Parts: sequence; structure tokens; C-alpha cells
Amino acid sequence: MIGQLVGPEIQELISLRDFSSLKEVVSDWPPADIADMIEILSENDQAILFRLLPKKLATEVYEHLELEVQKRLLRAMAQEQVAAILNEMAPDDRTALLEELPAPTVLQLLQQLSPAERMVSRSLLGYPENSVGRLMTPDFVAIHPEMNVDQVLRYIREHGKDSETLNVIYVIDDNGKLLDGIRAREFLLSPLDKKTSDVMHGNVIALNATDDQETAVDMFRKHGRYALPVIDSEGHLIGIVTIDDVLGVADEEATEDIQKFGGMEALEKPYLSTPLLEMVKKRAGWLVILFVGEMLTATAMGYFEKEIARAVVLALFVPLIISSGGNSGSQAATLIIRAMALAEITLADWWRVMRREIIAGLMLGITLGSIGFLRIVLWSVVFHLYGPHWPLVALAVGMSLIGVVMWGALAGSMLPFMLRRVGVDPATSSAPFVATLVDVTGLLIYFSVAFFILKGSLL
Amino acid sequence: MIGQLVGPEIQELISLRDFSSLKEVVSDWPPADIADMIEILSENDQAILFRLLPKKLATEVYEHLELEVQKRLLRAMAQEQVAAILNEMAPDDRTALLEELPAPTVLQLLQQLSPAERMVSRSLLGYPENSVGRLMTPDFVAIHPEMNVDQVLRYIREHGKDSETLNVIYVIDDNGKLLDGIRAREFLLSPLDKKTSDVMHGNVIALNATDDQETAVDMFRKHGRYALPVIDSEGHLIGIVTIDDVLGVADEEATEDIQKFGGMEALEKPYLSTPLLEMVKKRAGWLVILFVGEMLTATAMGYFEKEIARAVVLALFVPLIISSGGNSGSQAATLIIRAMALAEITLADWWRVMRREIIAGLMLGITLGSIGFLRIVLWSVVFHLYGPHWPLVALAVGMSLIGVVMWGALAGSMLPFMLRRVGVDPATSSAPFVATLVDVTGLLIYFSVAFFILKGSLL
Repeated sequence: MIGQLVGPEIQELISLRDFSSLKEVVSDWPPADIADMIEILSENDQAILFRLLPKKLATEVYEHLELEVQKRLLRAMAQEQVAAILNEMAPDDRTALLEELPAPTVLQLLQQLSPAERMVSRSLLGYPENSVGRLMTPDFVAIHPEMNVDQVLRYIREHGKDSETLNVIYVIDDNGKLLDGIRAREFLLSPLDKKTSDVMHGNVIALNATDDQETAVDMFRKHGRYALPVIDSEGHLIGIVTIDDVLGVADEEATEDIQKFGGMEALEKPYLSTPLLEMVKKRAGWLVILFVGEMLTATAMGYFEKEIARAVVLALFVPLIISSGGNSGSQAATLIIRAMALAEITLADWWRVMRREIIAGLMLGITLGSIGFLRIVLWSVVFHLYGPHWPLVALAVGMSLIGVVMWGALAGSMLPFMLRRVGVDPATSSAPFVATLVDVTGLLIYFSVAFFILKGSLL
Repeated sequence: MIGQLVGPEIQELISLRDFSSLKEVVSDWPPADIADMIEILSENDQAILFRLLPKKLATEVYEHLELEVQKRLLRAMAQEQVAAILNEMAPDDRTALLEELPAPTVLQLLQQLSPAERMVSRSLLGYPENSVGRLMTPDFVAIHPEMNVDQVLRYIREHGKDSETLNVIYVIDDNGKLLDGIRAREFLLSPLDKKTSDVMHGNVIALNATDDQETAVDMFRKHGRYALPVIDSEGHLIGIVTIDDVLGVADEEATEDIQKFGGMEALEKPYLSTPLLEMVKKRAGWLVILFVGEMLTATAMGYFEKEIARAVVLALFVPLIISSGGNSGSQAATLIIRAMALAEITLADWWRVMRREIIAGLMLGITLGSIGFLRIVLWSVVFHLYGPHWPLVALAVGMSLIGVVMWGALAGSMLPFMLRRVGVDPATSSAPFVATLVDVTGLLIYFSVAFFILKGSLL
């Protein structure tokens, strides 16, 4: 926003390479806006401007930069600055950076950390990829239940400086086991002499460090909290996850699902940062699988080669019919997969869904079938296409459309249930996958219906 | 989670209709878990159990319920309880409920509110649908810059009870204009005699009440805040938006995009809550448009009817070739549309994307083309299919695949740019839309290539 308002002025300072004025101008900006500006500079200028920023601001800006720019600056910075920034970064943001770097670089960078921060980073990196452990930060404030509000506020004032959030204060027992999470507002609003144990609710919700990150997203979605505590297998409080990290995971989740819908393996990085060959590989895999599946259409049509030779007119409607089945299938699959991802639909709903899709598919099929029927009738009457038996051709195409569209809706909606039943991510039954399935079966429906209606006349 | 653990016991109490024990058991649960349990009860039991909950808990549980259940309970509750719950609800949650109800019901419910709450709800409902105004709550704490930390903390203790969040405290001038937002932690960590003006940063980020909700999501994504202030056109602070509301909007956004990808209008409600006819309508619209577009394939094939009659073998590979183009196109379109939604790609990147997609499309085309070529060669040699000119047929299919797959990648990636350029949501160029486009043009490519290679021999 700010970048757009003062754009020309900034461009001027950049082209003049007047970095000290630039520094003065931007140092009042929100860190995310400075990061946006740095990202549009040339590699060389990025490093120069970044080095001019005061240390604390530099760290905040760094946390907002894209991974690629973070890596580039890491190489361009002097060792002391690298050390300063890495030590200042929030542990969860640091994990997000380190887990994307090659192992030798990680080891080298860990050496630059203070012993305490190094231990923290090592233990966070020890959790499996995509686990809550990789998302959490061990910087939180924990208190004991016998403290009163006044003591708690004073304790926060002394020990809260490094905490990722002070919005929730956690209560632990003498062994470090999590007892409760209390919103700071309770302390801000309660009389100073009230005891913590009297403010406690006891209905604490916690994540496990080994939980999948998607579990964390679901918990935040469900409970609407700002932060959730993370415990180990014995119930000890070992970290917290904040909702801003989770917004990123929810975005990633949706991106993965969308890319799988699109018929490919999910990319791990943004489109433009993914190396070309890696992207081609991710796309080629599914494209080849779908292609091999689609080869069955050639086989299926081969069975009807004689019928096609006798009635070439039948071949003309093949793309129309199979694509209608495919589109109907993609719609159904998309609806069901997304509803499953948001937990609106569970396995137990398959029968309700099936009934809905049979009716919906029938209605959609009748709609398209009627249009297809009328199209052939009209073109035949007006342009005299499709030969003398056009009424039968129109009937064959119309009836096939009803069957194929209904079958598409049914297959598209049931496939996600079957995949989930056998433990496969339903997003894998992406639209193209359903379309391929329906293409092959749709051909069989079409030629069978056509054979039945046209035998004795055209066939 | 809890629901699963004690499931059988709860089921027992429900079947015994022992609601008072049930109430006792659940009253320690997190509100979201009670809501989950209520949602699986029968309509009748829902109302009975809900009426047993203490007032404050009832409101919290009510805020977590699905919209459909909220509406049902609204009808089942006595008027006093409706009034109590509506008055207690957070204004933003109340807006979310009211905006889904028919106008007469809304007017009737507004009458149940206290005059103050009614004024709040009226003004929130006055903002356009999907605007930040509908998402915000006017419950915040605002202070003046000359107050010191001790005064601020005492002010919060007196006036903060109804605030949606105490995580950020807002500073306003004497006219109510927003000066800054300060995280509560700054007050918790600063010496008591420090003045607010000395804690201020001045780089405040604010939303406009008339901004689109997607703008709010982007701002939260970018700046990683927990809450953002909302101002009117003159800069007066009129409300706040918290990140938990935004997580819901981000989910909705992704759902809309995914449903558009799937080739339909986005549903406004969850799949199972959408009336069947409404859903069929939303699906039929695009299905008919795609069908009409796909009719061009019949026209295109009509042009080549003579060629097909002479070489029926060509018809056998039509589904294989056009679907490969369609799949390649969906992949490209999906990647670009999602990257645009996350602002990873802007209009200015079209040329970079085009170069990438030409190369990627060529590589993917060569892959599929080679497999297709080999498939025909193998089947010809082993099964003696495809006639005496099979080497030329194999060549025609292989070359067409290269062309069609490359064209698919190019069309799929460029269409979103064109749509966005003319101001249409790129998600509209859903996979099926691209597939239809590529189907028609793919047929032209195939038959032209085949004509060129086979003329003089098969044709």
C-alpha cells in the first residue's frame, strides 16, 4: 500500500543509490512493507539496503521476506550480521528458514547461534516435517496456580519480553505439566488479589508436538483461539503455536488441494521459484498416468470401429459426450473433496451424498440431453447434416448424455469416498482423474445406447 | 476429540434423555466441543439440551454452532432466551447470523436487542455484503496518548470487559481519529510511569470499513497481526477485525476458488446444507455453457467427416489427444490461478510465465507424444491393428500430441492473465473451461497434422 503511494520517490532514491535517505524514509514503515520493497530491488541493492537497517528492524523485515530472498541475503551478509539476525529471529520463523536449507548450511548456521538458541533450534528441527513441533516456539510465559493476579502481572513484566505472545498465559504444575491456558484479558480485568487458580477454567485444549500441522489448523478453525499450547507425550508444556503461523498452513493446504485438483503433484514452492525441471517432473507424473488411462479410450473405440465405419456420424459426437460426463464428474468430485477437507462431510454421509448426486445428475443429464437433442434436430432440419436417420441419431445422443452426465456425477462424488475409505487423500481423485475414468466408461455407454437405438437402421 | 473419548457414555445419557446429568458432564467442556455434540443430536434433543445450558456458556456454544443449527434453535427457543443470547453474542458473530436470515426475521430479532446493541447491529448490517464492515466488531479499547502505562492498565481493568480482544489497545486523538495500535504486551512489559506516546510506533496499519473482506485477509497474511483496526473514510476508529474471523474468510475464499476450478458457480453454503435445486442450478449454468462450447467439437469434426470416413482409424485417437491437451491445460491454469490468488504472480509476470510454459509444454508434449507413438507401433506390430499405414498413423498421433499438449499449457497459463487483464476473476477460467477450449482447437491441430502427414497414403 505504502509502496504504491510513494513509489516514484523510492524509485528515484534507488536509482540515485541514495541508500541513506532511503533508510531514513523507510524506517517508519511497517516491516512487511519494507520487505515488499526490498523484494523488488536488484540482488545487489537488496544486500546494500538491508545492511543499512538497524538491527532490530532488520530482523523483523527479514522474517517477512520470501524464502528465496532470505537465502540470497544470507549469502550476501557478513558473518556477524548473519549471527545477529539468526539469534534475534523468532524460533518458529528460524525453523521455517532452516528446514529449507541444505544440511551443511544448516550445520554451519547453527554454529553462529548462541548455545541457548542453538539448543532450541536443534530440538525444533528434531520434530518430523509438517509436524506441530516444526511450527511451535518455546517462547511462552508459564506461571503456577498459587500466584495472584498482581504477582502474575509482575512476573510477566520481568520474564515476558521474549515471549512470542502475551495474549495467553499458561499455568503449569511443579513438574511442568500443563494445567490451563488463561487469556491475558482475564488478568487485565481481574482484581489484583485474585488467585490464578480461581481464574482457571480447566478445559484446556492442547496440541501434541508430533501432531500433523493440519490437525493444528483444524483445532484453530474449530475453537477460534489465538494460540494453542503444545505438549509432549507426558503432558509437559513445551511450546505454543500462534494463529498467524496457522493461516500460512491453511493457505498451503488449500494450495496443495487445488494443485492436486488440477491433476498434478503439489509443488513445494511458489510457481516462479520452482525450478522448471522439477515442475515438469511433478506435472509429467500424473499426465502420463492419465494418458495411459486415456489410452483405454482408443481400445474402447477400437471395439466399435466397424460401427463407426458404417456410421461416421457417431464419431462426430464423441468429444461432446465424453467431455460432458467429465465436466459433470469434476463438479461432483470438487464439491465432495472440498467439503471433506473442511470436515463438512464424513465417510458416514456417503449414502446421503449418493442420493443427492443421482437426482442432481439426472436433472443435469436431462438438461444437457435435451439441448443436445434439439441441437441435432435443428442442424438436421436447417443444414441437412447427419443423414436420413437423424431423428434416431438425435435420440441416441440425447439418451447417452443423460446416462453419461448422471454416471459422471455419481462416479465423481463416490470416488473421494472410496479413496478416503482406503486411506488415500481424496484430493488425489482430481478432476482430470475423474474425467479420464468417465471418458472411458462414457464411450461404452454412448456406443451401447447408439447400438441399441440405431441397429436395423443406421447400424 | 473429547466427543470421541466419551462418546458411548454421552450416547447413553442422550438415549436415556437424562439431560441434567448430560448438562453436568458437558459444562466443563470447551464450547466448540459442546457445539459439536449438539450438532449430532436430533432436532428435538438439540433444543432441550441447549435450554439447559447456563446463559453465558449457552452464548459461547451458540457462537460455535453451524448456521443451520443456529437458525433451528432460534425457532425453538423462548423469546426471553433468544433476547438473552442475541444481546450477549459478539457483534461480529451476530452480524454473521443476521445476514443469513430473511429480512422480516431480522427486523423481528433486532426488536429483541437492547437499544445500544440494536444500534450496533443496524450499523454493521448497513455495510455492503463481503465488506470489512460486516466482519468487524465495535468492541475495542481506545486510549489517549497522554495516559501513562499505569493509567492505561487501570483503564483497561474498568472498561475492557466487553472488548473483543485486549491483545491490541488503540490510541486515538480527541476527535476519535486513529493514531496507533499498541500490543498489550508493550503495556505489560513497560515501566508503569512510561507515557503512551513514548510507546507509540506511529506506523499503524488500518482497514477501511468498505474494503473487501479479501483485502483484510491479504493484510493479515502480509503483516502477521492478530487484529487490525477499521477506520471510516475520515480516519476515525470505528471497529476492529480479529484474525480468527479472517481464517474463516480465507477458507471461504479457497472454497470458492476450488468450486470455480471444478467448473461451477461457488455455493454459498456447505454442500449438504445447500438445497438440491439451488445446487443443480449453480452446476447447470456452467455445464450448459461448457456444453454449448463443446458443441464446436462436433462442428470441427464435421469438417473432417470425409477424412474420418476414409480413415476411421483417426477417430479412435480423438479422445486420447483432446483429453491430453485438456489435462495439460488444467494443470497450467490451476498453477497460475492459485499463484495469482496468493499474489505470488502479478500481471507483469506474463512473459516469464509464457516462456516457462512453452518450454514445459514442449517437454511434456514430447513425453506424451513418444509414449503415444510407441503405443501405436507396439499394438500394430503385436496385434496388427491400425492398418498398413500404421507408421504414418503413429507419427501423426505423436506429432499432434506434442502440439496439443504444448498448446494446452500455453492456453491454460495465458487465459488467467487475459481474464484478469479485463477485470474478470481468473478462477473463472476453471479447468473444464480451459479443457473445452483446448478440445476444440486440439481437434483442429490433430486433423491438420494428420492430413499433412497422411495425404497421399491413407487420405
